[in-house]
Amino acid sequence: MPPQRASETAQATPTIDPMPAVTPIAVRDADLANVKYDDAGLVPAIVQEHGTGEILMMAWMNETTLRRTLEEGRTVFWSRSRQEEWRKGDTSGDRQFVREAYFDCDGDTLLFVVEQEGKGACHTGEKTCFYRAFGG
Amino acid sequence: MPPQRASETAQATPTIDPMPAVTPIAVRDADLANVKYDDAGLVPAIVQEHGTGEILMMAWMNETTLRRTLEEGRTVFWSRSRQEEWRKGDTSGDRQFVREAYFDCDGDTLLFVVEQEGKGACHTGEKTCFYRAFGG
Repeated sequence: MPPQRASETAQATPTIDPMPAVTPIAVRDADLANVKYDDAGLVPAIVQEHGTGEILMMAWMNETTLRRTLEEGRTVFWSRSRQEEWRKGDTSGDRQFVREAYFDCDGDTLLFVVEQEGKGACHTGEKTCFYRAFGG
Repeated sequence: MPPQRASETAQATPTIDPMPAVTPIAVRDADLANVKYDDAGLVPAIVQEHGTGEILMMAWMNETTLRRTLEEGRTVFWSRSRQEEWRKGDTSGDRQFVREAYFDCDGDTLLFVVEQEGKGACHTGEKTCFYRAFGG
């Protein structure tokens, strides 16, 4: 068998996007103690795209899904309509890999900076859920 | 009196930063009809800085303060703790001038892109309310 050139070898292998690296964030009780949950035990979580700064979505977390998000390095939310946990991308494939995570001055809002996989964050197929502007 | 050079005239006048331009956004009933309020009549409003993309804060609006925000071109919120309207910057001087405004796919979260005046958005003196990171 003749030796293959590198380009032929590359052509023979289907291109698969590598899964983005998972970068879990240390779960510290001192951090978590700052977070204030509403009467339903939930806190709003803003999701911003790493690199572009684009705001992708807002969803809700409880204490369990916040811990899972930090530990797993992927966003996990609480669905208020279905009353169940959901890990972003498990159904759609559009996973979010957490790069940075913040809590605000009052501890009642969270911010996650993520690497967004796939076509975007919105269930409509748009990249961001905020695709409609007031006034135009 | 001898004629003054331009530089002398400028020195004689204290430097005052001009107020950023106000750019109101058309209030359309068709837009507002998309917005869904919670049981308390409120909707979360994310505030992002124009130009940098930095997320400055999150606060709450009711239908009245949303309309005022669009009409006046400055952010106006509803304080859940004080149960009253507050227009950002009236006390602190750190006003927010709205440049773009969005509602999300479900209509239950708003996003305002603003020109932030003064030192920042947070009552602590930080530029952004999200100045504390999990894990670090």
